[in-house]
Amino acid sequence: MTDPYTPTPDDKFSFGLWTVGWQGVDVFGGAVRPRLDPVEAVHRLAELGAAAITFHDDDLVPDDTTRDKELDRFRTALSETGLAVEMATTNLFSHAVFKDGGLTANDRDVRRYALAKVLRNIDLAAELGANTYVLWGGREGAESGGTKDVAAALDRYKEAMDALCGYVREQGYDIRFALEPKPNEPRGDILLPTIGHALAFIDSLEEPGRVGLNPEVGHEEMAGLNYAQGIAQALWHGKLFHIDLNGQHGPRFDQDLRFGAGNLRGAFWTVDVLQGPGEGRAYDGYVHFDYKPPRTEDIDGVWETARACMRNYLILREKVRAFRADPEVGEALAAARVGELAVPTLAPGESLADLRAESHDPDAMAQRGMAFERLDQLAMEHLLGVR
Amino acid sequence: MTDPYTPTPDDKFSFGLWTVGWQGVDVFGGAVRPRLDPVEAVHRLAELGAAAITFHDDDLVPDDTTRDKELDRFRTALSETGLAVEMATTNLFSHAVFKDGGLTANDRDVRRYALAKVLRNIDLAAELGANTYVLWGGREGAESGGTKDVAAALDRYKEAMDALCGYVREQGYDIRFALEPKPNEPRGDILLPTIGHALAFIDSLEEPGRVGLNPEVGHEEMAGLNYAQGIAQALWHGKLFHIDLNGQHGPRFDQDLRFGAGNLRGAFWTVDVLQGPGEGRAYDGYVHFDYKPPRTEDIDGVWETARACMRNYLILREKVRAFRADPEVGEALAAARVGELAVPTLAPGESLADLRAESHDPDAMAQRGMAFERLDQLAMEHLLGVR
Amino acid sequence: MTDPYTPTPDDKFSFGLWTVGWQGVDVFGGAVRPRLDPVEAVHRLAELGAAAITFHDDDLVPDDTTRDKELDRFRTALSETGLAVEMATTNLFSHAVFKDGGLTANDRDVRRYALAKVLRNIDLAAELGANTYVLWGGREGAESGGTKDVAAALDRYKEAMDALCGYVREQGYDIRFALEPKPNEPRGDILLPTIGHALAFIDSLEEPGRVGLNPEVGHEEMAGLNYAQGIAQALWHGKLFHIDLNGQHGPRFDQDLRFGAGNLRGAFWTVDVLQGPGEGRAYDGYVHFDYKPPRTEDIDGVWETARACMRNYLILREKVRAFRADPEVGEALAAARVGELAVPTLAPGESLADLRAESHDPDAMAQRGMAFERLDQLAMEHLLGVR
Amino acid sequence: MTDPYTPTPDDKFSFGLWTVGWQGVDVFGGAVRPRLDPVEAVHRLAELGAAAITFHDDDLVPDDTTRDKELDRFRTALSETGLAVEMATTNLFSHAVFKDGGLTANDRDVRRYALAKVLRNIDLAAELGANTYVLWGGREGAESGGTKDVAAALDRYKEAMDALCGYVREQGYDIRFALEPKPNEPRGDILLPTIGHALAFIDSLEEPGRVGLNPEVGHEEMAGLNYAQGIAQALWHGKLFHIDLNGQHGPRFDQDLRFGAGNLRGAFWTVDVLQGPGEGRAYDGYVHFDYKPPRTEDIDGVWETARACMRNYLILREKVRAFRADPEVGEALAAARVGELAVPTLAPGESLADLRAESHDPDAMAQRGMAFERLDQLAMEHLLGVR
Repeated sequence: MTDPYTPTPDDKFSFGLWTVGWQGVDVFGGAVRPRLDPVEAVHRLAELGAAAITFHDDDLVPDDTTRDKELDRFRTALSETGLAVEMATTNLFSHAVFKDGGLTANDRDVRRYALAKVLRNIDLAAELGANTYVLWGGREGAESGGTKDVAAALDRYKEAMDALCGYVREQGYDIRFALEPKPNEPRGDILLPTIGHALAFIDSLEEPGRVGLNPEVGHEEMAGLNYAQGIAQALWHGKLFHIDLNGQHGPRFDQDLRFGAGNLRGAFWTVDVLQGPGEGRAYDGYVHFDYKPPRTEDIDGVWETARACMRNYLILREKVRAFRADPEVGEALAAARVGELAVPTLAPGESLADLRAESHDPDAMAQRGMAFERLDQLAMEHLLGVR
Repeated sequence: MTDPYTPTPDDKFSFGLWTVGWQGVDVFGGAVRPRLDPVEAVHRLAELGAAAITFHDDDLVPDDTTRDKELDRFRTALSETGLAVEMATTNLFSHAVFKDGGLTANDRDVRRYALAKVLRNIDLAAELGANTYVLWGGREGAESGGTKDVAAALDRYKEAMDALCGYVREQGYDIRFALEPKPNEPRGDILLPTIGHALAFIDSLEEPGRVGLNPEVGHEEMAGLNYAQGIAQALWHGKLFHIDLNGQHGPRFDQDLRFGAGNLRGAFWTVDVLQGPGEGRAYDGYVHFDYKPPRTEDIDGVWETARACMRNYLILREKVRAFRADPEVGEALAAARVGELAVPTLAPGESLADLRAESHDPDAMAQRGMAFERLDQLAMEHLLGVR
Repeated sequence: MTDPYTPTPDDKFSFGLWTVGWQGVDVFGGAVRPRLDPVEAVHRLAELGAAAITFHDDDLVPDDTTRDKELDRFRTALSETGLAVEMATTNLFSHAVFKDGGLTANDRDVRRYALAKVLRNIDLAAELGANTYVLWGGREGAESGGTKDVAAALDRYKEAMDALCGYVREQGYDIRFALEPKPNEPRGDILLPTIGHALAFIDSLEEPGRVGLNPEVGHEEMAGLNYAQGIAQALWHGKLFHIDLNGQHGPRFDQDLRFGAGNLRGAFWTVDVLQGPGEGRAYDGYVHFDYKPPRTEDIDGVWETARACMRNYLILREKVRAFRADPEVGEALAAARVGELAVPTLAPGESLADLRAESHDPDAMAQRGMAFERLDQLAMEHLLGVR
Repeated sequence: MTDPYTPTPDDKFSFGLWTVGWQGVDVFGGAVRPRLDPVEAVHRLAELGAAAITFHDDDLVPDDTTRDKELDRFRTALSETGLAVEMATTNLFSHAVFKDGGLTANDRDVRRYALAKVLRNIDLAAELGANTYVLWGGREGAESGGTKDVAAALDRYKEAMDALCGYVREQGYDIRFALEPKPNEPRGDILLPTIGHALAFIDSLEEPGRVGLNPEVGHEEMAGLNYAQGIAQALWHGKLFHIDLNGQHGPRFDQDLRFGAGNLRGAFWTVDVLQGPGEGRAYDGYVHFDYKPPRTEDIDGVWETARACMRNYLILREKVRAFRADPEVGEALAAARVGELAVPTLAPGESLADLRAESHDPDAMAQRGMAFERLDQLAMEHLLGVR
């Protein structure tokens, strides 16, 4: 009998090369693990049941002199395993040149270099078949108020995004962009700090249809925001192009824990939103993990975390489905009048004048309990596996 | 000689009736001050140099049976003092009927009552001359994931905003709406939790031009976000319709301290953004304070805090102007290449192909220090009054 | 067949009268539920399987004129149900007189009144059989640095605690004190803000053995601290006299969610610490819930939350026991060398000179993976009920 | 005329070698600055007016093969400049061997190596004249609840500290230890996370008099705690052996900004506590800065930040003195009854029975306003330099 929590490519799980490949360098210490060969990563992820891999240019081809050879080896590994490249992104944060950002650096030369670096990697992404191109502007920001003209920075961000949209259109690439918001770290404050700020920015672009979001669990939790609620709003705007799942314990440094660790109840509701509680609202893209295996782990521990990310998703998916299928939950949803919110406030054809003519008895309405806690406790018991 | 920090109506300072009128009820304790008569508030605020007052319906006319009499007294006070009503808003959070929200309550009857309550107070706002109508949806949210269908809630929010926009258009009122985001408290998670989420939502409306933002300092700081950066983005989108100034110490309960208390360096940059470091980018609306005089204060302390809010703004405004006028600051801005960010990344007529043809030397570029700390230290010394 | 998660008095569950009795008043709104008669609370909690009830003086006997009558009714209810009073505490925060604190108010008259109020209620606590007397100094603090002399405040806190210790000793009461730390809310910053600060303070007292802690889950989480780790340190110091279980989502307002809601993985480790992973280290006091049924609930929802607090504890207790009994967990603990930490760093009789004479090969030692993630994933799967 | 904000050695300013020497490696990027020669650091800090320098073993002598030579050069530089070594500390966090901590690592071999490493550097510290030896246990902690037995970890911490105390006693070194708390980063949760937890731990040691604290501004602010209040409690316990000044914006990653940046009002009250508002309560040790010059800076920017740390301290010291000397402040302090808190709650010889016999009128007392906001506004105006 198969373990129901063993992934298959149909589950569309995807991992960044930089996740299992993280060597453990942080502000306070050096590498704890040797470099992981991307070819090895491809084979191991395929064995574990992943469907796809993603990369930054510098993860895959850190060195121009070996670029062609490394790409050949990588293509061969993809072909041998059937693993897809579903997304790619540019490293605009590690090299010292990006210390004040890439696309919004004050230094125009840096911006030009950054833009060229993105273009080059989009070509590679297209060639390898990626349909999503992520931009995480981790160094686009500032530590102090006077050093960054926010309006000018947004102008430059828009200039870059408009140029990139034009580029993929002209090249005929089947690629959509996905912005990844983050409130801070490594900069004191980062531009487009949350799902909301990035959504608003997209509406200012020349081709907004080409740009959506890649929200990361931990990044929203670092601002104390509810990730499930955030991606629900992104879906409502039709902008959930990609996701980054991981774990985080609220406002503190970016922990990048494996999915499920951190806010577990939040992970349950995240999967619920992704599965689509309502009709036609499910997310159908790759389920991408962006996390860091803790420095305490050797390479065996790394693969354990990759396995656990997928396993936890599958466990939660099963629980979410059972929750939604449970008749007692259906009854509790009705008691909590959750479905009633889909009924428009005004009746068809009703005018505001009609509404105002109606009399209201707020004191009487206030007596009605919402029965929310019973519903949440049912969810809790599904999550805990005691129903 | 006049004190340069004594306000006049030209400074356009405005206060919520509920600020100086806060009696001190919190989760853990009861009132510490008697009810403040709105008429008394008008007279005292005018004496202190404020230009305007704002209100929730329930602040001004808590009781229908005395509504006409209270409104007469209030109009007389306005007329005697010259104080304007520049903004009004609806209390959709205090009565028990709003325990699950107003415009997005699961209970449709509650939504209908809430909408009618808003309409009624818009009429009063228009009659009293307010040009801004604020909506703070403090109870629009949830404590748990299953109890609120976020997509349906956004549908209902949009339905309500579209209806309200239609109403002011049809009535010919010179009123714009301003949404006030907040991440949490009193609900576990509130819909439209930040400036960004509210901006994105506005783009989904039928008449987005009628709706902008009323961001509050403390609400963004509760999410660890940089308020000055947030309102700069709102200005960039043309959506900073109103502001709520106060003070807060980062992620914790909503402190509503007087302006200047909390994050003082943040307050400096806030005033800098409002004054408009670039051309044509200044905020020219009322400078509205939304704070709570601490429970430790008697009524004399209340007026002390109102005075201090305005005084701190004027002090900071003077310092911001001196900072921007200081030749050494100009030199430091140049060294930090702040102005260079206004130069487009691509030259006029330049193509991406041209850009890619160019060679880049990132290692060389990386050598250039940004000299940000010197600039920030100059700002610090202006703030501290030692330059 | 009995539901294994139905509590009995042997489980020693206890509730504050003010928890199920919370009427829902917060900073932004009024009561949503009528006052709950303490007698009704006693009967309902007993029916639900609780073992004990606790109270503030003002919860039980808000009014001197009806004090004797109310106490008689309460004693009768206790006697009818067998519910114990295991703890009592003083309300030094609701009345306006405590706006600057009780035992550390600047105003000496207030301090004297506060101390007298505590003494009076200690007599009642002793009479009703409570063995723990809690002090939560929610208003002992300040909003600004100059208004509170922290050293003097600690002197006064010590004076009060020394006096109270002397009082119970002289009266021969079988009562220990338990301080409840909190970082902020309702004051901007509260004295003795964490478990650690309170532990340190206790060491300064004349009779430190009479004073321990009553740490609350949410209060530590509001500071981003790990509650399980905190109570483990309190146990290590022999100071975990009592506990307050509830739920919270990190640094934000005090949510007082039912136990289990908020940080669920944290709740699992909390129960693990309370059950005592090591020998002789378990907590054996009452399992006390200090939470607030959300305002969305009517009285049925209130009892649902009370039931759920106990149920979640029993579910987690079962899972913790299964985790500790699982042979694969035992193996993973060994691989993670968790038990090795109990082995002293120096061998018996070994000197530091011996240690230094030894040679070390840090590069070789660094190769050893800690296998922590596998262990944590096993815990996760026990929590989720999939093992 | 001399600039009043130019430091001299009498100001006792001190810097970590690792602060000005930070090369900019973080989780997301590599070095932005070349290695700074410790000899160069000594000369430049001396020129800027610092009195002392501090170091980790690995900062000063990263390589055993060049140890003697580097120490000779360093001693020469100290002697040429008159700069003192006032404190030293051990790097138990950068090498991969410390991935699970040093003194509390599960792996006993690691603990033994860590302890030996501390001992060796204490000898060097003593030789170079340091009187304070700091222990920051940044890697002493865990990411998950099952992987660290907290009680055993505290046992090992105590074992190590007891051994170290014995060592300096036996060697006759004039050295005191100072523990540096931190809530998290780089570990998910760190042991002894706040000032309070470390104070409590010290009381468990065999020679508590040899051990105190080295609290860092940013570390307490990361937990949302008030640093000034925290060090005031540490002083009250007689345990403020050393300080680490820097800047931080509340709960987020460890920013290590220059002193003054971040919470500026907090910095004012910090200096106020250090200067000792009451008699005999001032801190008289070195004023040590532990910060990181942002990655945006080249080496000129590094020295600018070092200069600014000291300058901001001197500016704030002047303002604090002026605040305390201002007669209007004296009057406001009296109105706020700040001094009254130094008066014991009980009169000399008064019994609790006497106190209880007294009648109290809480409603009348509650009328007294505390006038705290006026006092705080006076402090604000001193800080802003407008008084």
